[in-house]
Amino acid sequence: MGKIRLYIDQPFVPGQALLLGPEQAHYLSGVMRQGPGAEIAVFNGRDGEWTARIERADRRGGALSLIARSAPQRDPPDLWLLFAPLKKARTDFIVEKAAELGAARILPVQTDHTNAERIAQGRLQAHAVEAAEQCGGTFVPQVAELTPLARLLEGWDSARRILWADEALVGPAQTLAGLPSGPWAVLIGPEGGWSEAERARLAGMAGVARISLGPRILRADTAAVAALTLWQAALGDW
Amino acid sequence: MGKIRLYIDQPFVPGQALLLGPEQAHYLSGVMRQGPGAEIAVFNGRDGEWTARIERADRRGGALSLIARSAPQRDPPDLWLLFAPLKKARTDFIVEKAAELGAARILPVQTDHTNAERIAQGRLQAHAVEAAEQCGGTFVPQVAELTPLARLLEGWDSARRILWADEALVGPAQTLAGLPSGPWAVLIGPEGGWSEAERARLAGMAGVARISLGPRILRADTAAVAALTLWQAALGDW
Repeated sequence: MGKIRLYIDQPFVPGQALLLGPEQAHYLSGVMRQGPGAEIAVFNGRDGEWTARIERADRRGGALSLIARSAPQRDPPDLWLLFAPLKKARTDFIVEKAAELGAARILPVQTDHTNAERIAQGRLQAHAVEAAEQCGGTFVPQVAELTPLARLLEGWDSARRILWADEALVGPAQTLAGLPSGPWAVLIGPEGGWSEAERARLAGMAGVARISLGPRILRADTAAVAALTLWQAALGDW
Repeated sequence: MGKIRLYIDQPFVPGQALLLGPEQAHYLSGVMRQGPGAEIAVFNGRDGEWTARIERADRRGGALSLIARSAPQRDPPDLWLLFAPLKKARTDFIVEKAAELGAARILPVQTDHTNAERIAQGRLQAHAVEAAEQCGGTFVPQVAELTPLARLLEGWDSARRILWADEALVGPAQTLAGLPSGPWAVLIGPEGGWSEAERARLAGMAGVARISLGPRILRADTAAVAALTLWQAALGDW
Protein backbone atom coordinates (compact mmCIF):
# COMPACT_ATOMS: atom_id res chain seq x y z
CA MET A 1 0.00 0.00 0.00
CA GLY A 2 1.10 3.60 -0.16
CA LYS A 3 2.61 3.29 -3.62
CA ILE A 4 0.71 5.16 -6.34
CA ARG A 5 -0.47 2.72 -9.01
CA LEU A 6 -2.28 3.73 -12.16
CA TYR A 7 -3.98 1.58 -14.76
CA ILE A 8 -3.22 3.04 -18.20
CA ASP A 9 -4.92 1.39 -21.13
CA GLN A 10 -2.13 1.99 -23.69
CA PRO A 11 0.63 -0.13 -25.21
CA PHE A 12 3.81 0.05 -23.11
CA VAL A 13 6.73 0.80 -25.43
CA PRO A 14 9.92 1.89 -23.64
CA GLY A 15 11.02 5.27 -24.95
CA GLN A 16 7.48 6.18 -25.93
CA ALA A 17 5.49 8.52 -23.68
CA LEU A 18 2.26 7.48 -22.02
CA LEU A 19 -0.38 10.17 -22.26
CA LEU A 20 -2.59 11.00 -19.30
CA GLY A 21 -6.14 12.26 -19.64
CA PRO A 22 -7.22 15.26 -17.53
CA GLU A 23 -8.70 13.03 -14.84
CA GLN A 24 -5.58 10.92 -14.21
CA ALA A 25 -3.32 13.97 -14.51
CA HIS A 26 -5.40 15.85 -11.96
CA TYR A 27 -5.38 12.82 -9.66
CA LEU A 28 -1.57 12.81 -9.73
CA SER A 29 -1.00 16.56 -9.42
CA GLY A 30 -4.04 17.83 -7.54
CA VAL A 31 -4.94 14.88 -5.30
CA MET A 32 -1.64 13.07 -4.75
CA ARG A 33 0.50 16.24 -5.04
CA GLN A 34 2.98 14.60 -7.41
CA GLY A 35 4.88 16.69 -9.94
CA PRO A 36 7.41 16.19 -12.73
CA GLY A 37 10.20 13.81 -11.75
CA ALA A 38 8.09 11.77 -9.31
CA GLU A 39 7.93 8.04 -9.96
CA ILE A 40 4.78 5.97 -9.88
CA ALA A 41 3.79 2.43 -10.86
CA VAL A 42 1.69 1.80 -13.96
CA PHE A 43 0.16 -1.27 -15.57
CA ASN A 44 -1.99 -1.84 -18.64
CA GLY A 45 -3.39 -5.26 -17.84
CA ARG A 46 -1.07 -7.08 -20.24
CA ASP A 47 2.59 -6.08 -19.75
CA GLY A 48 3.18 -6.34 -16.01
CA GLU A 49 3.92 -3.42 -13.71
CA TRP A 50 6.30 -0.66 -14.73
CA THR A 51 7.94 2.25 -12.99
CA ALA A 52 7.13 5.48 -14.80
CA ARG A 53 8.29 9.06 -14.31
CA ILE A 54 5.91 12.00 -14.41
CA GLU A 55 6.99 14.38 -17.19
CA ARG A 56 3.98 16.65 -16.95
CA ALA A 57 0.70 16.59 -15.03
CA ASP A 58 -1.81 19.36 -14.69
CA ARG A 59 -5.50 19.95 -15.12
CA ARG A 60 -5.39 19.58 -18.88
CA GLY A 61 -3.52 16.30 -19.05
CA GLY A 62 -0.04 14.92 -18.70
CA ALA A 63 2.63 12.52 -19.82
CA LEU A 64 4.69 9.74 -18.26
CA SER A 65 7.88 8.08 -19.44
CA LEU A 66 8.40 4.38 -18.83
CA ILE A 67 11.56 3.53 -16.88
CA ALA A 68 11.68 -0.19 -16.23
CA ARG A 69 9.45 -3.13 -15.57
CA SER A 70 9.00 -3.67 -11.82
CA ALA A 71 6.86 -6.82 -11.81
CA PRO A 72 5.82 -9.44 -14.36
CA GLN A 73 2.31 -9.71 -15.71
CA ARG A 74 0.24 -12.01 -13.56
CA ASP A 75 -3.14 -13.13 -14.79
CA PRO A 76 -5.73 -14.67 -12.46
CA PRO A 77 -6.98 -18.22 -12.98
CA ASP A 78 -9.67 -18.71 -15.62
CA LEU A 79 -12.54 -17.97 -13.27
CA TRP A 80 -15.66 -16.06 -14.20
CA LEU A 81 -18.17 -14.57 -11.81
CA LEU A 82 -21.82 -14.57 -12.90
CA PHE A 83 -24.10 -12.62 -10.59
CA ALA A 84 -27.48 -10.93 -10.65
CA PRO A 85 -27.11 -7.18 -10.02
CA LEU A 86 -28.38 -5.84 -6.71
CA LYS A 87 -28.80 -2.29 -5.52
CA LYS A 88 -26.06 0.12 -6.58
CA ALA A 89 -23.72 -0.06 -3.58
CA ARG A 90 -23.86 -3.85 -3.33
CA THR A 91 -23.28 -4.30 -7.05
CA ASP A 92 -20.28 -1.96 -6.91
CA PHE A 93 -19.05 -3.96 -3.97
CA ILE A 94 -19.32 -7.30 -5.76
CA VAL A 95 -17.31 -6.01 -8.71
CA GLU A 96 -14.60 -4.55 -6.45
CA LYS A 97 -14.33 -7.77 -4.45
CA ALA A 98 -14.32 -9.99 -7.53
CA ALA A 99 -11.40 -8.00 -8.97
CA GLU A 100 -9.49 -8.23 -5.67
CA LEU A 101 -10.18 -11.92 -5.28
CA GLY A 102 -8.89 -12.68 -8.76
CA ALA A 103 -11.87 -13.22 -11.03
CA ALA A 104 -10.85 -13.07 -14.69
CA ARG A 105 -14.22 -11.93 -16.01
CA ILE A 106 -17.31 -10.47 -14.37
CA LEU A 107 -20.68 -11.10 -15.99
CA PRO A 108 -23.81 -9.45 -14.61
CA VAL A 109 -26.77 -11.66 -15.50
CA GLN A 110 -30.52 -11.14 -15.62
CA THR A 111 -32.38 -13.95 -13.91
CA ASP A 112 -36.09 -14.61 -13.62
CA HIS A 113 -36.16 -12.80 -10.27
CA THR A 114 -33.66 -10.02 -11.02
CA ASN A 115 -35.07 -6.52 -10.89
CA ALA A 116 -32.24 -4.80 -12.78
CA GLU A 117 -33.07 -3.79 -16.34
CA ARG A 118 -29.68 -2.25 -16.98
CA ILE A 119 -26.35 -1.73 -15.28
CA ALA A 120 -23.92 1.18 -15.27
CA GLN A 121 -21.30 -0.85 -17.08
CA GLY A 122 -18.78 2.01 -17.22
CA ARG A 123 -19.03 2.68 -13.50
CA LEU A 124 -18.64 -1.01 -12.72
CA GLN A 125 -15.60 -1.26 -15.00
CA ALA A 126 -14.09 1.74 -13.19
CA HIS A 127 -14.57 -0.09 -9.88
CA ALA A 128 -12.70 -3.09 -11.27
CA VAL A 129 -9.84 -0.82 -12.39
CA GLU A 130 -9.65 0.87 -8.99
CA ALA A 131 -9.61 -2.48 -7.22
CA ALA A 132 -6.72 -3.66 -9.42
CA GLU A 133 -4.82 -0.43 -8.70
CA GLN A 134 -5.36 -0.91 -4.96
CA CYS A 135 -4.62 -4.60 -4.65
CA GLY A 136 -1.31 -4.56 -6.47
CA GLY A 137 -2.65 -6.60 -9.36
CA THR A 138 -1.53 -6.27 -12.97
CA PHE A 139 -4.78 -7.59 -14.45
CA VAL A 140 -8.16 -5.90 -14.76
CA PRO A 141 -11.17 -8.18 -15.19
CA GLN A 142 -13.60 -7.14 -17.89
CA VAL A 143 -17.12 -6.33 -16.75
CA ALA A 144 -19.50 -7.59 -19.41
CA GLU A 145 -22.84 -6.12 -20.41
CA LEU A 146 -25.93 -7.32 -18.58
CA THR A 147 -27.05 -10.55 -20.28
CA PRO A 148 -30.03 -12.82 -19.64
CA LEU A 149 -28.79 -15.93 -17.85
CA ALA A 150 -30.92 -18.17 -20.08
CA ARG A 151 -29.19 -16.83 -23.20
CA LEU A 152 -25.77 -17.26 -21.62
CA LEU A 153 -26.52 -20.86 -20.67
CA GLU A 154 -27.81 -21.66 -24.16
CA GLY A 155 -24.42 -21.02 -25.69
CA TRP A 156 -22.47 -22.28 -22.71
CA ASP A 157 -19.12 -23.94 -23.42
CA SER A 158 -19.38 -27.22 -21.54
CA ALA A 159 -15.64 -27.16 -20.84
CA ARG A 160 -16.31 -24.38 -18.32
CA ARG A 161 -17.71 -25.85 -15.13
CA ILE A 162 -20.15 -23.91 -12.96
CA LEU A 163 -20.02 -23.55 -9.20
CA TRP A 164 -23.66 -22.92 -8.43
CA ALA A 165 -24.35 -21.34 -5.05
CA ASP A 166 -27.89 -22.41 -4.23
CA GLU A 167 -29.39 -20.63 -1.24
CA ALA A 168 -32.06 -23.33 -1.00
CA LEU A 169 -29.32 -25.79 -0.13
CA VAL A 170 -28.92 -24.75 3.50
CA GLY A 171 -26.74 -27.14 5.43
CA PRO A 172 -23.18 -28.29 5.65
CA ALA A 173 -21.09 -26.67 2.93
CA GLN A 174 -19.62 -28.93 0.33
CA THR A 175 -15.90 -29.18 0.26
CA LEU A 176 -14.47 -28.10 -3.06
CA ALA A 177 -11.53 -30.45 -2.71
CA GLY A 178 -11.76 -33.10 -5.39
CA LEU A 179 -13.39 -30.87 -8.00
CA PRO A 180 -11.41 -30.76 -11.24
CA SER A 181 -9.36 -27.69 -12.11
CA GLY A 182 -9.70 -25.82 -15.41
CA PRO A 183 -12.08 -23.06 -16.46
CA TRP A 184 -14.87 -22.35 -14.01
CA ALA A 185 -17.64 -19.86 -13.39
CA VAL A 186 -19.08 -19.02 -9.97
CA LEU A 187 -22.82 -18.40 -10.26
CA ILE A 188 -24.57 -16.34 -7.57
CA GLY A 189 -28.31 -15.87 -7.56
CA PRO A 190 -30.45 -12.78 -7.02
CA GLU A 191 -31.88 -11.67 -3.67
CA GLY A 192 -35.21 -13.12 -4.80
CA GLY A 193 -33.73 -16.59 -5.30
CA TRP A 194 -33.78 -18.88 -8.32
CA SER A 195 -36.95 -19.68 -10.22
CA GLU A 196 -38.08 -23.28 -10.61
CA ALA A 197 -37.23 -23.13 -14.31
CA GLU A 198 -33.69 -21.94 -13.55
CA ARG A 199 -33.22 -24.62 -10.93
CA ALA A 200 -34.33 -27.32 -13.35
CA ARG A 201 -32.11 -25.94 -16.10
CA LEU A 202 -29.01 -25.78 -13.91
CA ALA A 203 -29.65 -29.15 -12.31
CA GLY A 204 -29.84 -30.72 -15.76
CA MET A 205 -26.58 -29.25 -17.05
CA ALA A 206 -23.35 -31.25 -17.09
CA GLY A 207 -20.42 -29.77 -15.21
CA VAL A 208 -22.49 -27.93 -12.65
CA ALA A 209 -21.45 -28.33 -9.00
CA ARG A 210 -24.21 -27.17 -6.62
CA ILE A 211 -22.90 -25.96 -3.29
CA SER A 212 -24.23 -24.68 0.00
CA LEU A 213 -22.53 -21.80 1.78
CA GLY A 214 -23.34 -22.86 5.31
CA PRO A 215 -26.36 -22.85 7.58
CA ARG A 216 -27.10 -19.11 7.47
CA ILE A 217 -28.64 -17.57 4.35
CA LEU A 218 -26.01 -15.22 2.97
CA ARG A 219 -26.82 -12.02 1.15
CA ALA A 220 -25.90 -12.27 -2.51
CA ASP A 221 -22.84 -10.02 -2.14
CA THR A 222 -21.56 -12.07 0.78
CA ALA A 223 -22.19 -15.26 -1.14
CA ALA A 224 -20.15 -13.95 -4.07
CA VAL A 225 -17.12 -13.21 -1.89
CA ALA A 226 -17.43 -16.48 0.01
CA ALA A 227 -17.76 -18.62 -3.12
CA LEU A 228 -14.85 -16.90 -4.88
CA THR A 229 -12.74 -17.39 -1.73
CA LEU A 230 -13.52 -21.10 -1.49
CA TRP A 231 -12.82 -21.60 -5.19
CA GLN A 232 -9.50 -19.72 -5.07
CA ALA A 233 -8.37 -21.62 -1.97
CA ALA A 234 -9.27 -25.03 -3.43
CA LEU A 235 -8.71 -24.67 -7.18
CA GLY A 236 -7.21 -21.25 -7.84
CA ASP A 237 -3.96 -19.41 -7.27
CA TRP A 238 -4.17 -18.87 -3.48
CA MET B 1 -36.26 -14.24 2.39
CA GLY B 2 -39.56 -12.45 2.24
CA LYS B 3 -40.56 -13.42 5.78
CA ILE B 4 -40.50 -10.51 8.23
CA ARG B 5 -38.05 -11.27 11.05
CA LEU B 6 -37.54 -9.02 14.04
CA TYR B 7 -34.92 -9.18 16.77
CA ILE B 8 -36.58 -8.36 20.07
CA ASP B 9 -34.33 -8.17 23.09
CA GLN B 10 -36.83 -9.42 25.66
CA PRO B 11 -37.45 -12.71 27.44
CA PHE B 12 -39.82 -14.95 25.44
CA VAL B 13 -42.52 -16.22 27.78
CA PRO B 14 -45.54 -17.78 26.03
CA GLY B 15 -48.68 -15.99 27.07
CA GLN B 16 -46.79 -12.82 27.86
CA ALA B 17 -46.86 -9.94 25.35
CA LEU B 18 -43.74 -8.61 23.68
CA LEU B 19 -43.67 -4.83 23.61
CA LEU B 20 -42.52 -2.96 20.52
CA GLY B 21 -40.82 0.41 20.62
CA PRO B 22 -42.04 3.15 18.24
CA GLU B 23 -39.34 2.30 15.69
CA GLN B 24 -40.14 -1.40 15.34
CA ALA B 25 -43.88 -0.72 15.47
CA HIS B 26 -43.58 1.87 12.71
CA TYR B 27 -41.45 -0.53 10.66
CA LEU B 28 -44.21 -3.15 10.87
CA SER B 29 -47.17 -0.85 10.27
CA GLY B 30 -45.76 1.99 8.18
CA VAL B 31 -43.02 0.28 6.17
CA MET B 32 -44.17 -3.33 5.89
CA ARG B 33 -47.91 -2.51 6.01
CA GLN B 34 -48.68 -5.18 8.58
CA GLY B 35 -51.56 -4.75 10.98
CA PRO B 36 -53.16 -6.61 13.89
CA GLY B 37 -53.52 -10.34 13.22
CA ALA B 38 -50.51 -10.57 10.88
CA GLU B 39 -47.85 -13.08 11.83
CA ILE B 40 -44.13 -12.44 11.81
CA ALA B 41 -41.02 -14.23 13.05
CA VAL B 42 -39.17 -12.98 16.12
CA PHE B 43 -36.00 -14.01 17.94
CA ASN B 44 -34.15 -12.70 20.96
CA GLY B 45 -30.75 -14.28 20.39
CA ARG B 46 -31.31 -16.99 23.02
CA ASP B 47 -34.61 -18.80 22.56
CA GLY B 48 -34.72 -19.71 18.88
CA GLU B 49 -37.20 -18.29 16.37
CA TRP B 50 -40.87 -17.86 17.25
CA THR B 51 -43.98 -17.03 15.32
CA ALA B 52 -45.68 -13.99 16.82
CA ARG B 53 -48.95 -12.23 16.08
CA ILE B 54 -49.25 -8.48 15.88
CA GLU B 55 -51.75 -7.26 18.47
CA ARG B 56 -51.12 -3.58 17.95
CA ALA B 57 -48.62 -1.54 15.92
CA ASP B 58 -48.71 2.19 15.28
CA ARG B 59 -46.43 5.18 15.52
CA ARG B 60 -46.36 5.14 19.32
CA GLY B 61 -45.46 1.48 19.78
CA GLY B 62 -47.05 -1.91 19.68
CA ALA B 63 -47.39 -5.40 21.09
CA LEU B 64 -46.95 -8.95 19.84
CA SER B 65 -48.17 -12.23 21.26
CA LEU B 66 -45.98 -15.32 20.96
CA ILE B 67 -47.63 -18.24 19.20
CA ALA B 68 -45.13 -21.08 18.87
CA ARG B 69 -41.47 -21.74 18.38
CA SER B 70 -40.66 -22.12 14.67
CA ALA B 71 -36.93 -22.93 14.85
CA PRO B 72 -34.48 -23.91 17.58
CA GLN B 73 -31.80 -21.57 18.84
CA ARG B 74 -28.64 -21.99 16.79
CA ASP B 75 -25.44 -20.38 18.02
CA PRO B 76 -22.43 -19.92 15.76
CA PRO B 77 -19.11 -21.59 16.52
CA ASP B 78 -16.90 -19.88 19.12
CA LEU B 79 -15.24 -17.58 16.60
CA TRP B 80 -14.31 -13.97 17.28
CA LEU B 81 -13.43 -11.38 14.68
CA LEU B 82 -10.81 -8.79 15.65
CA PHE B 83 -10.42 -6.01 13.10
CA ALA B 84 -9.13 -2.46 12.90
CA PRO B 85 -11.94 -0.06 11.97
CA LEU B 86 -11.84 1.50 8.52
CA LYS B 87 -13.94 4.25 7.02
CA LYS B 88 -17.60 4.21 7.97
CA ALA B 89 -19.07 2.23 5.07
CA ARG B 90 -16.37 -0.45 5.14
CA THR B 91 -16.61 -0.85 8.91
CA ASP B 92 -20.38 -1.23 8.67
CA PHE B 93 -19.81 -3.77 5.95
CA ILE B 94 -17.38 -5.85 8.00
CA VAL B 95 -19.83 -6.04 10.91
CA GLU B 96 -22.71 -7.01 8.61
CA LYS B 97 -20.64 -9.70 6.91
CA ALA B 98 -19.22 -11.07 10.17
CA ALA B 99 -22.75 -11.50 11.52
CA GLU B 100 -23.88 -13.24 8.32
CA LEU B 101 -20.84 -15.49 8.22
CA GLY B 102 -21.37 -16.63 11.79
CA ALA B 103 -18.91 -14.79 14.01
CA ALA B 104 -19.88 -15.08 17.66
CA ARG B 105 -18.26 -11.82 18.78
CA ILE B 106 -16.95 -8.79 16.91
CA LEU B 107 -14.13 -6.80 18.47
CA PRO B 108 -12.94 -3.56 16.85
CA VAL B 109 -9.31 -3.06 17.84
CA GLN B 110 -6.96 -0.12 17.78
CA THR B 111 -3.62 -1.02 16.23
CA ASP B 112 -0.45 1.05 15.88
CA HIS B 113 -1.54 2.10 12.39
CA THR B 114 -5.28 2.47 13.00
CA ASN B 115 -6.68 5.93 12.51
CA ALA B 116 -9.96 5.40 14.35
CA GLU B 117 -10.16 6.98 17.79
CA ARG B 118 -13.70 5.84 18.38
CA ILE B 119 -16.42 3.79 16.77
CA ALA B 120 -20.17 4.23 16.61
CA GLN B 121 -20.74 1.14 18.65
CA GLY B 122 -24.53 1.51 18.66
CA ARG B 123 -24.67 1.83 14.89
CA LEU B 124 -22.43 -1.19 14.42
CA GLN B 125 -24.53 -3.26 16.82
CA ALA B 126 -27.63 -2.27 14.82
CA HIS B 127 -25.91 -3.55 11.66
CA ALA B 128 -25.26 -6.87 13.37
CA VAL B 129 -28.93 -7.08 14.39
CA GLU B 130 -30.12 -6.28 10.86
CA ALA B 131 -27.79 -8.89 9.39
CA ALA B 132 -29.15 -11.53 11.77
CA GLU B 133 -32.72 -10.56 10.86
CA GLN B 134 -31.88 -10.85 7.16
CA CYS B 135 -29.88 -14.05 7.16
CA GLY B 136 -32.38 -16.13 9.10
CA GLY B 137 -30.10 -16.45 12.10
CA THR B 138 -31.26 -16.69 15.68
CA PHE B 139 -28.05 -15.28 17.16
CA VAL B 140 -26.75 -11.71 17.22
CA PRO B 141 -23.00 -11.27 17.73
CA GLN B 142 -22.07 -8.64 20.26
CA VAL B 143 -20.02 -5.73 18.93
CA ALA B 144 -17.50 -4.79 21.63
CA GLU B 145 -16.13 -1.34 22.38
CA LEU B 146 -13.00 -0.25 20.55
CA THR B 147 -10.02 -1.67 22.49
CA PRO B 148 -6.28 -1.31 21.93
CA LEU B 149 -4.99 -4.56 20.46
CA ALA B 150 -1.99 -4.54 22.80
CA ARG B 151 -4.26 -4.49 25.85
CA LEU B 152 -6.41 -7.28 24.41
CA LEU B 153 -3.36 -9.46 23.75
CA GLU B 154 -1.98 -8.87 27.26
CA GLY B 155 -4.94 -10.56 28.85
CA TRP B 156 -5.40 -13.08 26.05
CA ASP B 157 -6.72 -16.53 27.01
CA SER B 158 -4.20 -18.87 25.41
CA ALA B 159 -6.95 -21.46 24.82
CA ARG B 160 -8.28 -19.21 22.07
CA ARG B 161 -6.14 -19.56 18.95
CA ILE B 162 -5.63 -16.68 16.56
CA LEU B 163 -5.85 -16.84 12.78
CA TRP B 164 -3.61 -13.95 11.83
CA ALA B 165 -4.07 -12.61 8.30
CA ASP B 166 -0.73 -11.04 7.47
CA GLU B 167 -0.78 -8.98 4.28
CA ALA B 168 3.03 -9.11 4.18
CA LEU B 169 2.75 -12.84 3.59
CA VAL B 170 1.87 -12.69 -0.08
CA GLY B 171 1.99 -16.07 -1.74
CA PRO B 172 0.19 -19.36 -1.73
CA ALA B 173 -2.52 -19.40 0.92
CA GLN B 174 -2.14 -21.84 3.76
CA THR B 175 -4.68 -24.55 3.96
CA LEU B 176 -6.54 -24.46 7.24
CA ALA B 177 -7.06 -28.20 7.20
CA GLY B 178 -5.16 -29.72 10.08
CA LEU B 179 -5.60 -26.77 12.43
CA PRO B 180 -7.23 -27.78 15.72
CA SER B 181 -10.85 -26.90 16.39
CA GLY B 182 -11.97 -25.04 19.50
CA PRO B 183 -12.19 -21.31 20.24
CA TRP B 184 -10.57 -19.09 17.64
CA ALA B 185 -10.24 -15.43 16.72
CA VAL B 186 -9.66 -14.13 13.21
CA LEU B 187 -7.37 -11.10 13.30
CA ILE B 188 -7.42 -8.63 10.40
CA GLY B 189 -5.01 -5.73 10.21
CA PRO B 190 -5.58 -2.07 9.35
CA GLU B 191 -5.19 -0.57 5.87
CA GLY B 192 -1.80 0.75 6.99
CA GLY B 193 -0.52 -2.74 7.82
CA TRP B 194 0.98 -4.09 11.03
CA SER B 195 3.78 -2.32 12.90
CA GLU B 196 7.04 -4.14 13.54
CA ALA B 197 6.20 -4.28 17.25
CA GLU B 198 2.84 -5.91 16.52
CA ARG B 199 4.41 -8.38 14.13
CA ALA B 200 6.99 -9.39 16.75
CA ARG B 201 4.34 -9.67 19.43
CA LEU B 202 2.05 -11.87 17.35
CA ALA B 203 4.89 -14.01 16.01
CA GLY B 204 5.99 -14.72 19.60
CA MET B 205 2.56 -15.78 20.86
CA ALA B 206 1.60 -19.42 21.19
CA GLY B 207 -1.48 -20.56 19.28
CA VAL B 208 -1.16 -18.00 16.49
CA ALA B 209 -1.52 -19.32 12.93
CA ARG B 210 -0.24 -16.80 10.39
CA ILE B 211 -1.90 -17.11 7.00
CA SER B 212 -1.71 -15.55 3.58
CA LEU B 213 -4.85 -14.78 1.61
CA GLY B 214 -3.41 -15.28 -1.84
CA PRO B 215 -1.14 -13.41 -4.22
CA ARG B 216 -3.17 -10.18 -4.42
CA ILE B 217 -3.23 -7.74 -1.52
CA LEU B 218 -6.79 -7.74 -0.23
CA ARG B 219 -8.46 -4.71 1.28
CA ALA B 220 -9.08 -5.20 4.97
CA ASP B 221 -12.82 -5.70 4.51
CA THR B 222 -12.27 -8.32 1.82
CA ALA B 223 -9.67 -10.03 3.99
CA ALA B 224 -12.15 -10.22 6.87
CA VAL B 225 -14.79 -11.94 4.72
CA ALA B 226 -12.26 -14.27 3.09
CA ALA B 227 -10.65 -15.33 6.39
CA LEU B 228 -14.02 -15.92 8.09
CA THR B 229 -15.11 -17.98 5.07
CA LEU B 230 -11.98 -20.15 5.11
CA TRP B 231 -12.28 -20.69 8.87
CA GLN B 232 -15.97 -21.61 8.70
CA ALA B 233 -15.39 -24.01 5.82
CA ALA B 234 -12.44 -25.73 7.53
CA LEU B 235 -13.23 -25.54 11.25
CA GLY B 236 -16.68 -24.04 11.67
CA ASP B 237 -20.29 -25.00 11.04
CA TRP B 238 -20.39 -24.79 7.23
